[in-house]
Formats: sequence, structure tokens, C-alpha cells
Amino acid sequence: MATLVITRHGESQANRDNIFTGWTDVPLTDKGVLQAQRAAKQIKQLGLDFDDVHTSMLQRAIVTANLICDMIGQSYIPIHKTWRLNERHYGALRGRNKEAVKEQYGAQQVAKWRRGFSALPPKLAQADHERRYDDLGVKIPLSESLKMTQERLLPYWNDQIAPQLLDGKNQLIVAHGSTLRALIKYLDQIPDDQIDHVEVANGEPIIYQFDRQLRVMSKETLD
Amino acid sequence: MATLVITRHGESQANRDNIFTGWTDVPLTDKGVLQAQRAAKQIKQLGLDFDDVHTSMLQRAIVTANLICDMIGQSYIPIHKTWRLNERHYGALRGRNKEAVKEQYGAQQVAKWRRGFSALPPKLAQADHERRYDDLGVKIPLSESLKMTQERLLPYWNDQIAPQLLDGKNQLIVAHGSTLRALIKYLDQIPDDQIDHVEVANGEPIIYQFDRQLRVMSKETLD
Repeated sequence: MATLVITRHGESQANRDNIFTGWTDVPLTDKGVLQAQRAAKQIKQLGLDFDDVHTSMLQRAIVTANLICDMIGQSYIPIHKTWRLNERHYGALRGRNKEAVKEQYGAQQVAKWRRGFSALPPKLAQADHERRYDDLGVKIPLSESLKMTQERLLPYWNDQIAPQLLDGKNQLIVAHGSTLRALIKYLDQIPDDQIDHVEVANGEPIIYQFDRQLRVMSKETLD
Repeated sequence: MATLVITRHGESQANRDNIFTGWTDVPLTDKGVLQAQRAAKQIKQLGLDFDDVHTSMLQRAIVTANLICDMIGQSYIPIHKTWRLNERHYGALRGRNKEAVKEQYGAQQVAKWRRGFSALPPKLAQADHERRYDDLGVKIPLSESLKMTQERLLPYWNDQIAPQLLDGKNQLIVAHGSTLRALIKYLDQIPDDQIDHVEVANGEPIIYQFDRQLRVMSKETLD
């Protein structure tokens, strides 16, 4: 059976500045580039030959994926960029400082939006328009809960990633805090009321091994 | 109609060291990275929205393509990596210093191998094996003339690039000296005995505009 490695992008400018971001396309910081390079070194030590890389349509994930592929000597593998791996859309919180939002709505409400499963951040009045999604049949969300994020992520998992793993092909996913929390919730069968305990740090790879029914056999992080 | 931009990768270690390379996967030099960044700035000034990037399965082209996409703010567009855009296979010359080969075979013979259309460099005794080509049905060549390179490149042009241009979608090709010479020979209808005059420099974009029959309407380089 094949191995799945998942990792969150390195620190972005919005991570550094403590700002809700979602689908806004912000670059990595210098620290974020170093985190991506560290993740690459760790992944290289696994000695895996990857067949596919899956990432979002946001540069913080794409640049991290490119750096990893280049540093592990496998820049030639296809990097699939999909909106289904985009960060959760943070709606009207997008662009706002997290502390300022806490002051406005209270820490408990913000914790629900950030770490809960079903809580929906305040919606945008109208959806953004972006060229990159024009031809994809994507309806850019006004806001997304973690549950909604999981619902749009799982078709991609089921159609594009799971069959490759069942076919013995090692897969790498470079994505975002919320999309990886949603995937981990699904893979580890975490109940809705327990997902608030799951955090995914920037640039720290997690390695999954599966059995032939694609049940998780082992899960480990690297030091 | 759409625009085609083609550019050769930045300087590689083999370019710097004056070594025949072909399908050997060598990295960019620091100067090569700067050349890629300069090409990106020039391409950005065109103000084009690209729909696809096409590159080879060799890191000097892939890393150049990644840098360009990132710097023009279009890292989200798909980057298609194909062996059909790989540099010409230099056979038994691969890994050898160009001056040493001139001493062995004479400058005239080496000029034919490097710049002629049909001259075939000495073959390898047996083909390399590389994982990246395993599942692609690629027979790694023992050596390639520019003509053979053009013959394996044109199906990709006809099937994957030309239809996109006819559909109004701007395309970017980041490839190699020989694959771009072969493409330019085809697009500009250069006779076999004139192709030795065509050179393609590292990281210098060329912009093509076509009419509705995909005949070249204009061709320009940037400063």
C-alpha cells in the first residue's frame, strides 16, 4: 500500500499578522519559506517516490509544494492545483485581525468559528470575482464552516487521491489549516464535538499509512 | 486570438560549465535564478493572463516556470510537465565538456551536432532508466538530432498547445535550447539549412501572435 504525506503551507503574511485570510492570496514570509524547506528535508528523509502532489489554488500552498518537490529532487511530478483544497472561506472576517474580531464578538464565538465544525463565519454581502475560478464552475462561497469545507473537499479526496493510494501510488498534499483539519477529521473519524482539539502547524508533515480498505493503519509526525 | 510566450530556462550548472547535458537533470545556477526572475519581470509587463504553462520534466525548466508564475502573480495556473519538451538527448556526449569534444571530433563536426538539423550525436550504448518516465510509455532515446527532437515535440504542440491558442487562451512555454529551436523552426518555417543561425538565449522571452489559421502574425523579443 501507498503512503500519504500531508503538510500545511509555511507561515504566510496573514499568519504572521494574525489576520483571517481564507481564499485571499497572500505570500509566504521568509520564515514560511524556511518552514517549507524544513518540511522538505523531513520528507526527503522518508525516501519516498511520490506520484502526485495535490495543492490549492493559493500561492502560499503552491510555493510550499514547489519548494518541497524541488528540494526532494522530484520537481518532475505533476502538481495538481484545485480549489477544493483551498483554505476555508472566512466570509466577512476575511482581512480582519483576529484580536479585533474577538473584541467585537467575544472569544467564545471566535473559538467556535475557528475551531468548531458547523459554525459559519459572517457572510460576505456578495461573492468575490476572481479570474482563476472562472472556468472551473466554482461558486465562490460567501463564507464556509469547517463542515462545508469538508463537503467540498471530500469529492476530490474520493475521486483523485484515494484511488491513487489504492493503486499503490504515494501522494503528497500541501494545503491549509482548515482543509487539513477537515481531512484529518474524516481519516481519523473524529466526532464533531472533538475537532476543536485538532491543530495543524505550518510546515509539519504528517504521514499516513493505510490498509487495503483505506483504513488508517498508522499516523506519525516527524521531528 | 491568443498570445504565445516562449522562454528558455535560466543558466544551468551545465551551461555555466560548458557541458553537454540533454536529459540529465541539473539545477539552475544563482545567475540562472536571476535570469528567470528577469524574464518574469518582462513577462509581467505584458499584462497577459495565461491559461496554461507547458514545461519539460527537467528541473532547470520547471524551476524557471515556477518562478515566472509566482512572480507574475499567476502561480495558480496549471503547469503541464511533459517529456516531449525535454532538451534534445545528447547521447554519448552527455556529461562531456564541449571544448574537449571539439578537440576529439573537430569544431566542424561539433557545430553540426549542436546547430545542424539532422546530425545525430554519438549514441549511448544502452538507454538510461529513470523512474520519472516509467509510466509514460517513453522510450528514452540513445541520442537525438534536432530533427528527432522536433518530431517528438510537434505532437504535443498540435494536441496540447495549438488548440488552446485557437481557443483564445494565452500559453507560456518554458523549455530548452533545442526544443525551442525546433519549435521556432516549425513556426517560422525556417529551411533545414538555415536553422544553424538560430540561437535561443537563457531567460529571454519571445512573444508570438497568430492569425486564425495559426500563422505567425508577429514575433518579438523584450528588453
